[in-house]
Amino acid sequence: MSRALVVIAEGTEEMEATIVVDLLRRAEIDVVVAGLDGDGPVKMSRGVRLLPDVALADAGDDFDALVLPGGRGGADRFAASPAIAARLAAFEGSGRCVGAICAAPIALVQHGAFAGRRMTCHPSVDAIVAPFAQHATDEVVEDGPLVTSRGPGTAFAFGLALIRRLADDATAERVHAPLMLAD
Amino acid sequence: MSRALVVIAEGTEEMEATIVVDLLRRAEIDVVVAGLDGDGPVKMSRGVRLLPDVALADAGDDFDALVLPGGRGGADRFAASPAIAARLAAFEGSGRCVGAICAAPIALVQHGAFAGRRMTCHPSVDAIVAPFAQHATDEVVEDGPLVTSRGPGTAFAFGLALIRRLADDATAERVHAPLMLAD
Repeated sequence: MSRALVVIAEGTEEMEATIVVDLLRRAEIDVVVAGLDGDGPVKMSRGVRLLPDVALADAGDDFDALVLPGGRGGADRFAASPAIAARLAAFEGSGRCVGAICAAPIALVQHGAFAGRRMTCHPSVDAIVAPFAQHATDEVVEDGPLVTSRGPGTAFAFGLALIRRLADDATAERVHAPLMLAD
Repeated sequence: MSRALVVIAEGTEEMEATIVVDLLRRAEIDVVVAGLDGDGPVKMSRGVRLLPDVALADAGDDFDALVLPGGRGGADRFAASPAIAARLAAFEGSGRCVGAICAAPIALVQHGAFAGRRMTCHPSVDAIVAPFAQHATDEVVEDGPLVTSRGPGTAFAFGLALIRRLADDATAERVHAPLMLAD
């Protein structure tokens, strides 16, 4: 069974975090929700309060994928975090999958991870990401181990792309069907 | 400012709850997340743990809309709850807006609320809802004060429809733009 580490911080976009966690768990991927600053309640970008499963510091390193949801406040915290810098370096160094959506790619920029890769982000952070990357505006952009996406409205596509990598196409199709997505 | 009461219970679909709360708050609607069984952490359908703002019993009655997210486990709890029965009767009796998505319309059926209205639901509960209502399969169905929808993939459209009612079209458009939805 694949394992994914999804990190949340104060100001993380609750829709993006919840959609990716929920979709990966529907695919029977073992998802750990880690709080950047501990295991207490996290106030997300629009005030939804979410309880992480564990503090990031206690999450271990036995994961196949690292996922950073967006929300500018949370992404700024990821960008300022030595723990996120270390995680990104470890995942990039070992060729493991990293997913970043919406504003989260600014943490890649800040920590110098995946420089020059093809990536997308929310338009509100285009100016930060574009000089660092081959900037794209597709719903989901995959370049080697890196999967990026644009915002809450692309979070379903982002989650399904991660499922195709961490499980397989058939699993993604099984998860997709009952969601009642228009596409 | 409009006020919306969103109820969650063990087994509520976390994507549906989070999307509607987040979207309504982006529209500056005052949203209260109420826990059916108290104000402690609620384990949602795929294990995301959410902290309600208040217990439903302490939420008061000063709301313009009542929203029931889906998830079969949560919907079954809504269907078995005298508190939900009383809320539905109060909202229907006063002509206030009620939203129900995915499996949540089974609570309307169980409590006899909005009988004969045009409504949609998740296909997995069609057989329960269809004999009670004018069953439809549109993404979002509006009939008088009742707004229903189909599942996680239609939750953005559901939230935007509620914003058009509780605020206005311009607010819904303002909220829609930065979501990066395909449509």
